[in-house]
Amino acid sequence: MNLIDGKALSNTIKEEIAAEVSKICKGQKRPPHLAAVLVGEDPASAVYVRNKVRSCEKCGFESTLIKKRENTTEDELLEIVKELNEDEDIDGFIVQLPLPKHIDENKITLAIDPGKDVDGFHPTNFGKMAQGLPAYLPATPFGIMTMLDRYNIEVQGKNCVVLGRSNIVGTPISILLSRKAKPGNATVTLCHSRTQNLADYTRKADIIVVALGIPNYLKADMIKEGAVIIDVGINRIEAPERKSGYRLVGDADFDEVSTKCSHITPVPGGVGPMTVTSLLTNTLQAYKSNFLNK
Amino acid sequence: MNLIDGKALSNTIKEEIAAEVSKICKGQKRPPHLAAVLVGEDPASAVYVRNKVRSCEKCGFESTLIKKRENTTEDELLEIVKELNEDEDIDGFIVQLPLPKHIDENKITLAIDPGKDVDGFHPTNFGKMAQGLPAYLPATPFGIMTMLDRYNIEVQGKNCVVLGRSNIVGTPISILLSRKAKPGNATVTLCHSRTQNLADYTRKADIIVVALGIPNYLKADMIKEGAVIIDVGINRIEAPERKSGYRLVGDADFDEVSTKCSHITPVPGGVGPMTVTSLLTNTLQAYKSNFLNK
Repeated sequence: MNLIDGKALSNTIKEEIAAEVSKICKGQKRPPHLAAVLVGEDPASAVYVRNKVRSCEKCGFESTLIKKRENTTEDELLEIVKELNEDEDIDGFIVQLPLPKHIDENKITLAIDPGKDVDGFHPTNFGKMAQGLPAYLPATPFGIMTMLDRYNIEVQGKNCVVLGRSNIVGTPISILLSRKAKPGNATVTLCHSRTQNLADYTRKADIIVVALGIPNYLKADMIKEGAVIIDVGINRIEAPERKSGYRLVGDADFDEVSTKCSHITPVPGGVGPMTVTSLLTNTLQAYKSNFLNK
Repeated sequence: MNLIDGKALSNTIKEEIAAEVSKICKGQKRPPHLAAVLVGEDPASAVYVRNKVRSCEKCGFESTLIKKRENTTEDELLEIVKELNEDEDIDGFIVQLPLPKHIDENKITLAIDPGKDVDGFHPTNFGKMAQGLPAYLPATPFGIMTMLDRYNIEVQGKNCVVLGRSNIVGTPISILLSRKAKPGNATVTLCHSRTQNLADYTRKADIIVVALGIPNYLKADMIKEGAVIIDVGINRIEAPERKSGYRLVGDADFDEVSTKCSHITPVPGGVGPMTVTSLLTNTLQAYKSNFLNK
C-alpha cells in the first residue's frame, strides 16, 4: 500500500508557486493578491481562512482578510463583493462558507465576478468546467486531480466510483474524472444516498472517491484488491485518550482498507492540504489573466 | 415492449403550452416571443430552425427568424446577439449551431444573456443545472427527463448508464439523472469512447441513454431484460428502396433491442420531437421571468 501524501505534495506545489511568483515579480511587479471575506465567528471557518492567508504569505502573495461581524447584512456583504470585483489590485477572492443563516449564499456566490471566483463555486465556472472549457476548478476536486496526476495514477479507461454528490466535491469530481483530458477519460459512476446495492459498484472500482461525511464508512469488503482510495472525509470522533478529546478520521476505515488497496490518502494529511494549494494555483492563474496579461 | 411516443407527447405538451399562453394573454398581453438566428446555408440547420418557428406559431408565440449570409463576421453576429440581449420584446433566443468555421461558437454562446439563453448552452445555465439551481435546461436532456416523467418511468435508485459524453446530451443528462429531484436520484454511470468493457455496464442498467451517433450500436445482448432504452441517435443510412435513398435509424438496433426492453423511444418520433418542446417550455419560462414577473 502506498500513501498519497497530500501534505508533502502541497508543500512541493507551494514551493513551485513561490519560485514562479518570485521569478515573475523580481521585486518590480506587484505579486498576486488574494482577498478572503470572513463573516461571523465560526471557529472552523476562522481556522480555514487563517490557513489560506498563511499559505498566501508562504508563496509570496499579498493577502487581505476582511472580517465582518456576525450580523452583517446581505446588502452590506453584496457591497463588499462589488468592491472586490472592481478592485484592480485584487486578482481573486473568496467568501468563506458557511455564511450566517440570514444571508443567501447563492446570491453572494452569484454576485462574485466569475473571473475572480478562485473558489470555482460560481455557476459560470462550474458550467465551463463541465463543458471542458478553461475555468477555475473548485478546490477539493482540483486537489484530487492534482494528486492523481502527480502520483502518476492511471485514470484513463478506469472504473471510477464517486460516493457523494455534493456541489463542492462529489458532483464536480465525477465530472472532472470523466472529461476528455489528462487526468480524466475514466468511466465514472456517481453514487449517493439513494443508490441501491452500493457495494456492487465499489467492489468493481479501480478508483474510489469517498465524500460522504460518514466516519469509517468504506470497509475492506467493499473494495477490490489494489484499488485506489481517495478519502475526502474529515470526521471528528471521540478519543478520550487524547488531550483534545477527539481525533480526525476519514470516510474510509483506514486500518481495514489500507491492507487491501494500492494507494490511499490519509486523514489528516491527504486531500485536506491540497485544497489550499488549489486556491493558490487558481489565484496565480487569476493574477496572470487579470493583471499580467490584461 | 412499450413505445415512448415522443411525437405524441410533444404534441400534447404543445397543446398545453398553447392553452396556457392563450389563458395568460387573453388578447391583451403580448405573447411569448422567441427569436432564432440562422447563419449560412446549411440545409439541416434550416430545417431545424423552420421547425422551431412553426412550433412557436402552433403555441401562440411570436417568432422572429434572423437569417444572415454565410460570410457574416463574428463581430456582426456578436452585435446581433447584443441587440437581442437588450430587446425587451424578445424573451429568449437561440443561435442555431453549427456556425460557419470562421466564427467561434464558444464566444457567441458566452455573449448570450443567460436569462435569454433558452437553449441552455451558456455555462452559467449549465453550471446552475449541475448545482441543482433553477436554470434553462438544454433541449435534448430536458426532453428526455420530460418523457421519463410523463411515462411514469421510475428513475430513483435505478442503475442508469449514459453512452456518450457530449456537452449537449451525454454530460448534461448524466448530471440531471443523478440530481436530487424528481425525476432523478438515479445512480448514473457515464460511458464513452475510452470506456473498457462497455457491455459490462449496459447489461446491468435499468435505464440506458444512448447518444453516440453510431447507427444500430446497441444490440440485444448488451442489455438486460426489461431495460428502458432512450435512443438519442439520428443516423442516416442508405436505403435504395426509398425515394429519398436513405432512412433514419437510432443508435440502438431497434429490431433486436425492442424484443427485450420494457420501453424504447423510436427513431424517428422519439427524442427528436421533444427537443423543440423543451425550447418552447424554456421560452415560456423566460416570458414569465423576463416579461410577466419583471
